[in-house]
Amino acid sequence: MIAVLVAAGSLRAGTRVRLEPEETHHLAVRRAGFDVNVTILDGAGWKGVGRLVAEGPSLAVEVDRAEQLPRPVPLTLAVGAGDRDRFGILIEQAVQLGVTAVVPLETERSASVASRVRMAHLERLRRRAREALKQSEACWAPEVYPPMELEAFLRQDGASVRWLADQQGTADPGRVGATAPLAVVVGPEGGLSPAEITRCRAAGYTPVRLGPHRLRFETAALAALTTAWLARQRESHG
Amino acid sequence: MIAVLVAAGSLRAGTRVRLEPEETHHLAVRRAGFDVNVTILDGAGWKGVGRLVAEGPSLAVEVDRAEQLPRPVPLTLAVGAGDRDRFGILIEQAVQLGVTAVVPLETERSASVASRVRMAHLERLRRRAREALKQSEACWAPEVYPPMELEAFLRQDGASVRWLADQQGTADPGRVGATAPLAVVVGPEGGLSPAEITRCRAAGYTPVRLGPHRLRFETAALAALTTAWLARQRESHG
Repeated sequence: MIAVLVAAGSLRAGTRVRLEPEETHHLAVRRAGFDVNVTILDGAGWKGVGRLVAEGPSLAVEVDRAEQLPRPVPLTLAVGAGDRDRFGILIEQAVQLGVTAVVPLETERSASVASRVRMAHLERLRRRAREALKQSEACWAPEVYPPMELEAFLRQDGASVRWLADQQGTADPGRVGATAPLAVVVGPEGGLSPAEITRCRAAGYTPVRLGPHRLRFETAALAALTTAWLARQRESHG
Repeated sequence: MIAVLVAAGSLRAGTRVRLEPEETHHLAVRRAGFDVNVTILDGAGWKGVGRLVAEGPSLAVEVDRAEQLPRPVPLTLAVGAGDRDRFGILIEQAVQLGVTAVVPLETERSASVASRVRMAHLERLRRRAREALKQSEACWAPEVYPPMELEAFLRQDGASVRWLADQQGTADPGRVGATAPLAVVVGPEGGLSPAEITRCRAAGYTPVRLGPHRLRFETAALAALTTAWLARQRESHG
């Protein structure tokens, strides 16, 4: 079934919600017809079922049913703010794996990357995170933060379980707590500097090994999210 | 430390190994100097340390030390043979996560993909798998098989634990056995057909859920490899 996005907070059963121009364009490109059943998501937890209808030159959805799903337990991914295209692909995959917040970290070794994520790319990254909901059918869009200094992130991560992706770390990070906010720091291409690693450890980050070999930053980030999901599953179900 | 690749079987302590032209070119591009210490890999389990030396217009390595690491327990990834560029990126990431064999599967829904993996791309994919060793410092290059019909793969997977990536499956696939060959089937973009899923299940494949949401095939493949690695770690150490 095709999934469509509507503005956060606009999705209620029995209403007609007009689609934003960009979404209308996406659907026109996909040649979706009228009266087609669709999954409707608002990115703020609401998921519904309805039908596409014409509204002037635009499209709308008639919402038949809708419910709000609980907000997931925080799972924050803070990654070196390197190349923005690779960062965009990473956000899309991270949404599939249940990320709730993405923080582009300004680090020593990402500072010289000409194509790095900057404030100006934030809206595009946020749109990409929302678009990824349609493919994954996730109900909550992750927060995408402006690029942030590592030190600033460490002061306000809001987590109670903290992992640092590190090939030299432990392969058994221990219990995560099924309802405990978890944050993962992943260095940029080239890694964190020794001083940055020391600062992360001082802030309570446990170095965690996430695979058998040296991982690129995207692979490490995805392995960390999978590891967190599996640990929470295991602890909540048995 | 820079890593260099040499021909499989050529890496022994106390010898001088001439680099293949392509490898010489890579290193020239990186402006590696002479007498630089390098990690040396042959893709067949040997890992060494040595120095780059000139050999006419070419380069060679003087091997100071070398040892062969044990062949890893089989971890086979059979993935719908869709777009070859995406498949190439996936192979690179799969190497980081410890894949030992990659099988491009010919499936109903990959058959119409114009850019799909074909026999003609096999050498390039194998080279990409070997190149990925340098970044990940993995010692064994995975086997990359020619595109294969799903049915043919199922008859000869050589596995004793079998997972089918499936959002409707179990989130707890149970014990894997730290030394048991494991095979994962992942459908192409668009998924396997119901008939193909039935054939996989009949061949002993357990549908396994690998994340909280619907996963694209690349994400599912990486999540499966991470899940397998974690399960083996847990069972062998704890």
